[in-house]
Amino acid sequence: MLEKRIPIAVGDAVAHVMKYAKHGEVERVPLTESYGRILGEDVVADHDVPHFDRSPYDGFAIRAEDTKKASQEHPAQFEVVGEIGAGSVFTEEVKAFQAVRIMTGAAIPTGCDAVVMLELTEGFQKDEKTYMKLKRPFQLGDNISFKGEDVKQHDVLVEKGTVINPGVAALLATFGYSTVAVARRPVIGIVTTGSELLEVHEPLEPGKIRNSNSYMIAAQIMRAGGTVRYYGQFADDFDTCYEMVKKTMEEVDILITTGGVSVGDYDYLPAIYEKLGAHVLFNKVAMRPGSVTTVAEVNGKLLFGLSGNPSACYVGFELFVRPIVQTFLHRKQPHMYRGDAILMKGFPKANPFTRFVRGKVEIVNGQLQAVPVGLDKSSAVSSLADANAFIVLPGGTRGFEEGMTVTVLLLEAEQGSEWPWKEPFQSYK
Amino acid sequence: MLEKRIPIAVGDAVAHVMKYAKHGEVERVPLTESYGRILGEDVVADHDVPHFDRSPYDGFAIRAEDTKKASQEHPAQFEVVGEIGAGSVFTEEVKAFQAVRIMTGAAIPTGCDAVVMLELTEGFQKDEKTYMKLKRPFQLGDNISFKGEDVKQHDVLVEKGTVINPGVAALLATFGYSTVAVARRPVIGIVTTGSELLEVHEPLEPGKIRNSNSYMIAAQIMRAGGTVRYYGQFADDFDTCYEMVKKTMEEVDILITTGGVSVGDYDYLPAIYEKLGAHVLFNKVAMRPGSVTTVAEVNGKLLFGLSGNPSACYVGFELFVRPIVQTFLHRKQPHMYRGDAILMKGFPKANPFTRFVRGKVEIVNGQLQAVPVGLDKSSAVSSLADANAFIVLPGGTRGFEEGMTVTVLLLEAEQGSEWPWKEPFQSYK
Repeated sequence: MLEKRIPIAVGDAVAHVMKYAKHGEVERVPLTESYGRILGEDVVADHDVPHFDRSPYDGFAIRAEDTKKASQEHPAQFEVVGEIGAGSVFTEEVKAFQAVRIMTGAAIPTGCDAVVMLELTEGFQKDEKTYMKLKRPFQLGDNISFKGEDVKQHDVLVEKGTVINPGVAALLATFGYSTVAVARRPVIGIVTTGSELLEVHEPLEPGKIRNSNSYMIAAQIMRAGGTVRYYGQFADDFDTCYEMVKKTMEEVDILITTGGVSVGDYDYLPAIYEKLGAHVLFNKVAMRPGSVTTVAEVNGKLLFGLSGNPSACYVGFELFVRPIVQTFLHRKQPHMYRGDAILMKGFPKANPFTRFVRGKVEIVNGQLQAVPVGLDKSSAVSSLADANAFIVLPGGTRGFEEGMTVTVLLLEAEQGSEWPWKEPFQSYK
Repeated sequence: MLEKRIPIAVGDAVAHVMKYAKHGEVERVPLTESYGRILGEDVVADHDVPHFDRSPYDGFAIRAEDTKKASQEHPAQFEVVGEIGAGSVFTEEVKAFQAVRIMTGAAIPTGCDAVVMLELTEGFQKDEKTYMKLKRPFQLGDNISFKGEDVKQHDVLVEKGTVINPGVAALLATFGYSTVAVARRPVIGIVTTGSELLEVHEPLEPGKIRNSNSYMIAAQIMRAGGTVRYYGQFADDFDTCYEMVKKTMEEVDILITTGGVSVGDYDYLPAIYEKLGAHVLFNKVAMRPGSVTTVAEVNGKLLFGLSGNPSACYVGFELFVRPIVQTFLHRKQPHMYRGDAILMKGFPKANPFTRFVRGKVEIVNGQLQAVPVGLDKSSAVSSLADANAFIVLPGGTRGFEEGMTVTVLLLEAEQGSEWPWKEPFQSYK
């Protein structure tokens, strides 16, 4: 009567899914719309920075050798022969004991090889000419930002796959990228099943609950960098759901269904996979919550069957869907950031399956601490709001004590991990 | 000839600015467009969760007392009198040695007080009736999720000022928020000045550079949660800039100008402030980069005069503009997240001013480590792309050694700090 499912290790399950990970195309967007997107091309310098020797201060451009004998008692004296605002250039050659008033960012005039800051000089007028004096020697090159000292032409400054943050935006502008190639966001369909589900605007009825999974997953998709296509919620009916899934698979890059994956009589997704001719990668994972998570593949497209239970659904998304989305976006570290943290509450009871406990990670005295949030019953939707990490408690025969170092996976970190699934998540016996 | 400016401590400067911080209005948006916005109202439970006693598993609902004598040798035997799918209800009362087949999430029928998981039972047929037997006793309440055990009606689940993450989205859906009140994003104007500036699409010219600050600040505004209104770049001309600033101040919540704040001859923003009748909060801060950062106030609106130098501009934004934006959005911890980290490179040279060094903070063995990135010359735009933190080196007479614990301010953390400016940033003598 009941199908017997064989659980596989979380690490193995992720590895199976990642075999189908692929890079998406790139598309060009205006620089002004690129914030937060992922670079689809390397950012290359189209010129040296600075692209001319320039002054980092307001002051005077001079020849250093003219200051050799300058001192408190015997200041060196310069005739001010002109001035250069930022953006303009001084076309004459500067000669001995001549100075040019120069503004921050302006080009050093020919002949000059040092800049003296304005506050170290004293100006005066004589015979209708302007002079400046200074009281100490300067070295050749003092206070000059040299051509190419920051960046050399053709340097690769930021690699494809990097998030466009404000610093990257500044570089793109500096090097003339008025449009920029970014990774296309994958289109991710959501099909929610469950006869017990009400729409958000509907009043409650006996035995029913409002559909929260769709909105949660939609937000998870956006956080991971995808575009949401919501197909609606459907009653537990084989024909309706089969037609819906079949149609949807053609319109999206990735499809997520929620509900219908358990072994209960009403859980008909396995039959849908069969009729679709889908290749089921796995239908049981040695983890809690989310052990019934099922992933299948049809013509190279992934079909994620997440649990209808909110917490299990949430965990399933972050473990299996997120790295697929991030790889599509050309991210090099597509998995959640993995770190170590001190466990602030014990979990004395052992569990054969690896647990992903919703937790809050905080930095205390430079050290990560992990505190479980809420009840951590798999039905406890309220704790998901507070969580910023999963506390990973490997399955086995022992419990976990307060003060132990445990693995945490961060939910909100921009930084990712390359392959966080070393032992003890790699195998399950 | 030169105006003498008195530097004030970073902490004092931030405190001055924060006197003018205010909360913005709230607006309603559809739940589907609320991801990443800030809650403008508390999320309150409109019902208990579960709002009926329900089964967390597929199995059978029974009366626990009927299992008292069940054992391997003498299984208890139940007549299966019906079944309940998720979303439906069983209307009859269940009597002694009767069981109801129940699906995950379905309501416990009247009379039952425990659920037995499907895999612990064995079904059989007799006299055209369906039976089930089980081999161990169950306690009253076993495998039942009780009404209200997760959330009680009227509970405040998430407070105003919280970012809407996937977990919060799930709660909003569960409690019927098809629209949600969120904090309005402040409109922030950008006016860039500098005769040396070219537009991004223009080819380079001698003495000129492309305008990168506008794009950088636009991205910083988006990261902080504001809406960008870009007014363009203008040559260093008093009349043009005065008219621009005056007009702009009426159209935005906050105005940022870049360039024109130094003491050079072409830096005429001080004169603009005077003509506007602005109250200048400060025009010199004991920090590097960004010491010339100027903040003024006109009729309660803030006017941020950031340096034209990219790094100084970047730092000025994060220190002074970010907390104003975050307060407008009702965030309770509006400043950058402050943590401690191990300094991975020494800064032997002392500096009287507090330095904000662009750095990369990483978690290594559960401990934060801070590595400076790039040259950290204030002109070095390339390092801004790699930075995810400022390493704070307080001003004074000593340098900083590798291995010391230093304060870091995180740039990409969603979490903030309430008031990170304790000593040594609070005072400057």
